[in-house]
Amino acid sequence: MRILVINPNSSVEMTRSIGDVLQRIKRSDTDITVVRTEGAPAAIQSATDAALATPFLLERVRKANEEGFDAIVLACFSDPGLEPARELSRTLVLGIEETTLHIASVLGHKYTILTPLEARIASKEQDVRRFKAEAACASVRALGMTVAQTEAEPERAIERILEVARVAIEQDRAEVLILGCAGMAGYGDAIEEELGIVVLDPTAVTFKIAEALADAGISHCMSSHSAIPG
Amino acid sequence: MRILVINPNSSVEMTRSIGDVLQRIKRSDTDITVVRTEGAPAAIQSATDAALATPFLLERVRKANEEGFDAIVLACFSDPGLEPARELSRTLVLGIEETTLHIASVLGHKYTILTPLEARIASKEQDVRRFKAEAACASVRALGMTVAQTEAEPERAIERILEVARVAIEQDRAEVLILGCAGMAGYGDAIEEELGIVVLDPTAVTFKIAEALADAGISHCMSSHSAIPG
Amino acid sequence: MRILVINPNSSVEMTRSIGDVLQRIKRSDTDITVVRTEGAPAAIQSATDAALATPFLLERVRKANEEGFDAIVLACFSDPGLEPARELSRTLVLGIEETTLHIASVLGHKYTILTPLEARIASKEQDVRRFKAEAACASVRALGMTVAQTEAEPERAIERILEVARVAIEQDRAEVLILGCAGMAGYGDAIEEELGIVVLDPTAVTFKIAEALADAGISHCMSSHSAIPG
Amino acid sequence: MRILVINPNSSVEMTRSIGDVLQRIKRSDTDITVVRTEGAPAAIQSATDAALATPFLLERVRKANEEGFDAIVLACFSDPGLEPARELSRTLVLGIEETTLHIASVLGHKYTILTPLEARIASKEQDVRRFKAEAACASVRALGMTVAQTEAEPERAIERILEVARVAIEQDRAEVLILGCAGMAGYGDAIEEELGIVVLDPTAVTFKIAEALADAGISHCMSSHSAIPG
Amino acid sequence: MRILVINPNSSVEMTRSIGDVLQRIKRSDTDITVVRTEGAPAAIQSATDAALATPFLLERVRKANEEGFDAIVLACFSDPGLEPARELSRTLVLGIEETTLHIASVLGHKYTILTPLEARIASKEQDVRRFKAEAACASVRALGMTVAQTEAEPERAIERILEVARVAIEQDRAEVLILGCAGMAGYGDAIEEELGIVVLDPTAVTFKIAEALADAGISHCMSSHSAIPG
Amino acid sequence: MRILVINPNSSVEMTRSIGDVLQRIKRSDTDITVVRTEGAPAAIQSATDAALATPFLLERVRKANEEGFDAIVLACFSDPGLEPARELSRTLVLGIEETTLHIASVLGHKYTILTPLEARIASKEQDVRRFKAEAACASVRALGMTVAQTEAEPERAIERILEVARVAIEQDRAEVLILGCAGMAGYGDAIEEELGIVVLDPTAVTFKIAEALADAGISHCMSSHSAIPG
Repeated sequence: MRILVINPNSSVEMTRSIGDVLQRIKRSDTDITVVRTEGAPAAIQSATDAALATPFLLERVRKANEEGFDAIVLACFSDPGLEPARELSRTLVLGIEETTLHIASVLGHKYTILTPLEARIASKEQDVRRFKAEAACASVRALGMTVAQTEAEPERAIERILEVARVAIEQDRAEVLILGCAGMAGYGDAIEEELGIVVLDPTAVTFKIAEALADAGISHCMSSHSAIPG
Repeated sequence: MRILVINPNSSVEMTRSIGDVLQRIKRSDTDITVVRTEGAPAAIQSATDAALATPFLLERVRKANEEGFDAIVLACFSDPGLEPARELSRTLVLGIEETTLHIASVLGHKYTILTPLEARIASKEQDVRRFKAEAACASVRALGMTVAQTEAEPERAIERILEVARVAIEQDRAEVLILGCAGMAGYGDAIEEELGIVVLDPTAVTFKIAEALADAGISHCMSSHSAIPG
Repeated sequence: MRILVINPNSSVEMTRSIGDVLQRIKRSDTDITVVRTEGAPAAIQSATDAALATPFLLERVRKANEEGFDAIVLACFSDPGLEPARELSRTLVLGIEETTLHIASVLGHKYTILTPLEARIASKEQDVRRFKAEAACASVRALGMTVAQTEAEPERAIERILEVARVAIEQDRAEVLILGCAGMAGYGDAIEEELGIVVLDPTAVTFKIAEALADAGISHCMSSHSAIPG
Repeated sequence: MRILVINPNSSVEMTRSIGDVLQRIKRSDTDITVVRTEGAPAAIQSATDAALATPFLLERVRKANEEGFDAIVLACFSDPGLEPARELSRTLVLGIEETTLHIASVLGHKYTILTPLEARIASKEQDVRRFKAEAACASVRALGMTVAQTEAEPERAIERILEVARVAIEQDRAEVLILGCAGMAGYGDAIEEELGIVVLDPTAVTFKIAEALADAGISHCMSSHSAIPG
Repeated sequence: MRILVINPNSSVEMTRSIGDVLQRIKRSDTDITVVRTEGAPAAIQSATDAALATPFLLERVRKANEEGFDAIVLACFSDPGLEPARELSRTLVLGIEETTLHIASVLGHKYTILTPLEARIASKEQDVRRFKAEAACASVRALGMTVAQTEAEPERAIERILEVARVAIEQDRAEVLILGCAGMAGYGDAIEEELGIVVLDPTAVTFKIAEALADAGISHCMSSHSAIPG
Repeated sequence: MRILVINPNSSVEMTRSIGDVLQRIKRSDTDITVVRTEGAPAAIQSATDAALATPFLLERVRKANEEGFDAIVLACFSDPGLEPARELSRTLVLGIEETTLHIASVLGHKYTILTPLEARIASKEQDVRRFKAEAACASVRALGMTVAQTEAEPERAIERILEVARVAIEQDRAEVLILGCAGMAGYGDAIEEELGIVVLDPTAVTFKIAEALADAGISHCMSSHSAIPG
């Protein structure tokens, strides 16, 4: 099985980091290709960044359909370009935010999304509606740290995640925590052990779901696309 | 007062047509500039078209902020680029779909969106959620005609609109009809007269709301943007 | 253009005050008539007050339809009598609460209504449902001051509004603030400047929307009424 | 136990008819007083009728609080004046629409409201939201007959009710039928027998609930009112 | 009238306690039989307890249909076995949670459920959805005491209920309080007097509603069941 | 990896049939154990059947936790006993209905559940709410055939599925079809090919998701359980 993981930004480092994580959790017979999106911004931190990245991302999706991949994962926790990508692609396309919100809805009564900065809460709440996952959403809560800070200062980040997570558990009754940015990806195990609740790393979870669905020969619905006149 | 109307596609003809309608309904002291989006597709008929148009559209919005406009209207009934445009713009930005859905929510118990083709119903329903206007949405119904056909064959288009509108009124209890594509723009009066219910042309309605809000010195919220780190 | 603004209570002073605000923001070619509702209570502070005012209000609306106005604005932030007024009136009728909730839904991710007293929160929440605007409602929060106090003590009122608004922004993620009583009407600019978010004065906003819709020849739906047997 | 039933309109005949039904189903130790609302319209067929009736109705509620009743039932299937009546009354006030919608929510998966005319569907749907009973609402469907016709032509009315009810059962999956106007009140048993599903006559059901709650010493919440400054 | 009250657990003591309360509030002509569920756990404190109790409960319901009862009340505030009991029973079956949530929806703007322990909040929230009563739900709040503790320490329990209730009133705007476990049953009057809002004891309220509906000859819908093939 | 699939009914034949399907789609390194639930009814066709099966099912889940399985799948499209099973199990437990509804929510705009008989529509709609998947639910539609008939008459069943599916696509805008009973399990490919939309067999999909989540070391939330006092 061959899975393409597209990092929607152009960062070489983050792309390599995604690949490292996925190599460790992939099935032995899965072949992973992780690519950055050349031409896109170096990080996706706003709706504008997402909009600027999307045309390049779509081009990559289109090309992937000719390269015989079994599934495509868009690895940015705002799923930029997910809807147009699905119009273009006969190959299954999964976004890590949409997929994780629905897996979280299965695994517990309610989930909380942790996001780096207060300024992103509104767009995360909007995404919860965009992906029809509001019934199980307890809250979106911010760390008050930038993505860069969460990566650069692991100890402080973990401490802060635990602090915010405890509020989510006690006040919002969260039973599942979603680590809503790449900078938190490595900290899941430490947090899960400390808090005793389910903690999801969206890229990892979605990659495993992609393996499962591709293995079962299941793709997304293209009916809208096929009906668009030439 | 100076209002910029951006047609998110690159069609010269449709841009001129928009301008013609708005010149007739603008206030005498309003100065309108209607521009097409160079670099964008000639029509926005899919999520892919919208994604490809958006970077060019954003560039135009950014520029408009330096040109001293009082309001910017995005004139395509899927509001491509609306969220990032608002991040970038201190000048009020209104999308014609979002604005019309909420004005329709005020004017009647429930509204129905008429859209050209069945294939667009899903994305219109998604937009109703995106713009938080689902409580007053009766239905989205399709004409089964392309945008081009609705423009090229006025008589058949009006006949078909009346037919679908009657179903919306009787079955979905619609009290407001929204003409959800540019091709239907000119037919509002004929339909309203025939059916006796409120019919809204999104471009016209939104333009008038833009005049009103700009006159009152009201803009959209930029707080998300201002909190994004440099 | 001729617009009738009906103050649903019988206070001469509040009626004059409304007129003063609107004269400053009206378009030069708009003719405003602001009237109080003779026979109504001196203030609308309960559902009972609203019920007692409504028959007199409806009589005024009926008369306005014979006087050739282009639009009627009901200027009380609970929109008493709005539904029956629309049954009776061919002329556009707008309520300042309904209209403002939907304009707020357009201008930001979520809005908060500020209301004078805790005892009114339940009825404001009910109004949010009545007007189908719950999807964008962050919260309703009370100042803990009476309408009279907010008018009589501007400094204390502004201080208290800022205090409550900051909670709404931080805890409820409000991006738009609605000044939900006449007593707060004059304080919008001071608050907007201090907080950097959109602040709406319902009477002013709705009046501008009335100018816009009347100018476009748009009215509300009367279809329910016309179907009622003689 | 003494229960006051207020018919919100001024019709002597309908008031007597309500009394006849309730005398048959009351407990032996219940004392019923059924009164019409003098000054109100002869029938409540629009929001305007309801608004005009309400001040007279409220006066009657206020008086009832001095007369020592144990409960007050407002007997019109649009619950005019329910909210202000509760502000004024320490005695339990129940509206027949609100109460019936929630009892219907208990007795089956979903309920359908039958209403006389198409023109009332919108306001019944609005009432479903007003009373927070939308989760169990299958539909509101109209008979296409006036209240007067449903009373004057029993056979045709029953036939028509059966016809519409069958559509509600098959298409909307209704498990409970609500006879949403006084004209249908006598036909419940015939319909229930024919269709084999639960059929509720709102006046009768609510009266029995009033007996039960009054017997248990339970009233509605007055907290909003008590907090309103003198 | 004969009403069967089934305590879904096997506790002799709790069964007697339920009987004592209901004997005091029943109508003089009502005959009550209160039974425990032999074979069930001694208390229902988890979904597992409820699942283990249900087969025994259903057997009792089936038998009750042959014994000529007019109504059956399931007296445990999680309504175990309610849906299958209704499939089996021509006699009206009411669950005390479902019934109380809807009566609470009628009596105030919003209700709060008090539950013994934090660990039950998620399942209570799920029940609110199961019974389609979410529109009027303010919150579910826990006392942090076990059922046994609430019974054994009345003074501490009342103090704690008042404390949590005040938070529900101030923060969640509750107007009706539901005492969501048998241990709190006796404390309603003391709390209502202290707080001045409506306090509901689910067993008592539901019993009175059962008397009322049985008296009116109303049962639940069995249509789903009757359509199940042999 | 070792996965236990529990068929909640006692049918030997259906258990073998489930095993046959899963053996074909499992990963080579997955070890499957498929067991029936001894003591349970031979088929789960009502809420009563589900209730009677659950205690036996729970006993099997408890035992499985001692046997070292990596995941447990409950293979009946009404997920009987799912909530209590999760209380008892440290091993991941997935229900095929809940999991499939959320995967369907990811793969298309809206999904339709096909169920054998009209009488089950109400409980399927209730399950959609139970699993918090209503935002993407287009409809539940019945074939009008029993489970036994769908198995015994493949040609007629496929014809009928296609017929109902076309209505779901055209009227409800379904983009994903869920084959909501075991009898339809084998027909997915034929239907998908004919209609060109995504068709999901719940047992197969959920089994693949169980492989994926178990491989990633992810389980469901047990926090509610752990907080229940001994």
